[in-house]
Amino acid sequence: MTLGILGGGQLGRMSAMAGLRMGVRVKLLAPSVSGPSLPFADTTVADWTDADVLRQWAADCDAVSVESEWAPADALAAVWDGPIRPGPQTLHLIRHKGRQNQTLAEAGLPLPRFALCATLDDARQSAEAFGYPVLAKRYEGSYDGYGNATCRSPEDLARAWDDLAADDGLLIEAFVDFEGEVSALVARREGGERAVYPIVATEHRQHQLHAAWLPAGLADGVEEEARRVAGEAIAAVGGIGLLAVEMFVTRDGGVLVNEIAPRPHNTGHLTIEACHTSQFENHVRAALDLPLGDPAAQVPAACMVNVVGSREGAVAPDLAAALAVPGAAVHLYGKPDSRPRRKLGHVTVTADSAEAARQRGEAAVSALAL
Amino acid sequence: MTLGILGGGQLGRMSAMAGLRMGVRVKLLAPSVSGPSLPFADTTVADWTDADVLRQWAADCDAVSVESEWAPADALAAVWDGPIRPGPQTLHLIRHKGRQNQTLAEAGLPLPRFALCATLDDARQSAEAFGYPVLAKRYEGSYDGYGNATCRSPEDLARAWDDLAADDGLLIEAFVDFEGEVSALVARREGGERAVYPIVATEHRQHQLHAAWLPAGLADGVEEEARRVAGEAIAAVGGIGLLAVEMFVTRDGGVLVNEIAPRPHNTGHLTIEACHTSQFENHVRAALDLPLGDPAAQVPAACMVNVVGSREGAVAPDLAAALAVPGAAVHLYGKPDSRPRRKLGHVTVTADSAEAARQRGEAAVSALAL
Repeated sequence: MTLGILGGGQLGRMSAMAGLRMGVRVKLLAPSVSGPSLPFADTTVADWTDADVLRQWAADCDAVSVESEWAPADALAAVWDGPIRPGPQTLHLIRHKGRQNQTLAEAGLPLPRFALCATLDDARQSAEAFGYPVLAKRYEGSYDGYGNATCRSPEDLARAWDDLAADDGLLIEAFVDFEGEVSALVARREGGERAVYPIVATEHRQHQLHAAWLPAGLADGVEEEARRVAGEAIAAVGGIGLLAVEMFVTRDGGVLVNEIAPRPHNTGHLTIEACHTSQFENHVRAALDLPLGDPAAQVPAACMVNVVGSREGAVAPDLAAALAVPGAAVHLYGKPDSRPRRKLGHVTVTADSAEAARQRGEAAVSALAL
Repeated sequence: MTLGILGGGQLGRMSAMAGLRMGVRVKLLAPSVSGPSLPFADTTVADWTDADVLRQWAADCDAVSVESEWAPADALAAVWDGPIRPGPQTLHLIRHKGRQNQTLAEAGLPLPRFALCATLDDARQSAEAFGYPVLAKRYEGSYDGYGNATCRSPEDLARAWDDLAADDGLLIEAFVDFEGEVSALVARREGGERAVYPIVATEHRQHQLHAAWLPAGLADGVEEEARRVAGEAIAAVGGIGLLAVEMFVTRDGGVLVNEIAPRPHNTGHLTIEACHTSQFENHVRAALDLPLGDPAAQVPAACMVNVVGSREGAVAPDLAAALAVPGAAVHLYGKPDSRPRRKLGHVTVTADSAEAARQRGEAAVSALAL
């Protein structure tokens, strides 16, 4: 079987490795030469918006998946009639924060209060109704804190409008004074079979994921509710493949959906070591419409810590120092150049407790000195 | 860092994947096109006994390892002065069953009684001394039962001599009425640092590995003794990298070394899922002289079952059926053609008990229908 992936970054790299293990051929199509995809013989570098390129590349694929919601799935769908998973409709829906929120709300899923605001006046009224502070979010292309603004006053809101509003306006969300942020990976097949992973707790630094661990330390009822909400959210957007649902846990034990990512997710990297079936393997399985694997944890606890660039320049990790940390599974993505905030790799540690795993994960990341 | 591996089979494939995960570049050199090495961009297919080929290929390697004791390490050593791990001397020693046994015996390690027999008369005298049955073993090139014969009489012995003896004769070993067969994976660095894995119990069918599992079910003292013997055996042969020691456990709880393999080993494939650091990762680490990873099990139990060809023809696994078995980690090596006894892949299952893991592993292998 052959799976094509539009993308040449770390998500494609780790998906390719999961496929290879099972004897599945994984082809990557990337718009430019990329370190993560370099080791794979089946990598094509070409203009991936070109109809001929797409048609030719996909011709021998049983299915195609995407590494990001911005990959040219629509262009592929126009010239190839094989299965794209997740499908262009799901990607279209998720790409736009307004459409995404509306779809989830219509499915009865819990979200922060939100409003789709076509004008600055609409935004002001919504902010008054929710009470300041509110979050202003660009509809498209926001990530890791980019494209979002916390507004504490009408003046902040006016500034955010100028910076972020598109032709169809801006999303305003009530600020959630959350207890914690969590994530659920969900694999889902055509027909609806799904596998929901154990909830992962997350910590962000400067709006970028820093660490993720399991167990998340939630009360049983909250863990169960978060998994239910995540599973239904992915069904609501018609997601096929592996998708992630980021959620807030509120101080009263409620769960609110923050956002969906239609692809394997940084919060799920620890599943490689921690779960019977990794998010990448289940992504490959779901994309090829193969039975899903067991998402349950196979260890008592695990923690992943991101390896993020701190400066410009060539990537020169002190691998020996990191590998000296007991139990550290070091993942580096093969990116030749670093820059601040660039994701270069991650370290996962499995242990008897998330705290013990976290401590060693942090030590190994520091030791890499990137 | 760049590691070269002489070989293009499943051991090179899985070592390459372990290296890639850590951001290590792994180059393969294979004498002919091979399915397992096909997915890797850094695969060279060329006459690997050719001095120019070897010199050029190894030029940018920090170290080179081998996939088998028969790889052209000597030819490489003649034209390249970088580190080959394990070294040609170790490979030379292990390749010849007589030299191997003598070295281990001189180091005081427990072995079945054996004799290096230069003539058929010598062999007859040794067999009389040990008592029939005895094993006759070709000094070089025996594996999976090939090159060995069980002799129950002087007539059997004469036949074995005709079939198997080389210019320097034949190895005669006393027959061991063992309780069980076990294996230990040992990673060892220059300078002697070593990591000995938990003992793996093994079951052979028609002289070929069928299943391997841990825990091995040995009494504490026997497990400890087997790990001690394995670690010292690898030190005795000067092994650097990941090597395997196959042993017999006798009915009185003793441990006897059967043989050493100077490379990652089929009995260690389960370490990918079961241990903090897989045999392949520790092979890459040791070969590059990086700190060794924790070999301890991270799950209560695991079992690996081999996927072996039963007929001639194209490999067409029923992947969907195998993946429907809960918890089955399916590994297929990308070999396009099957034949009886060819190793095509394996399945590992982690579980609370080796028995539960074994049952599901067998089910998944049967489901593949290869």
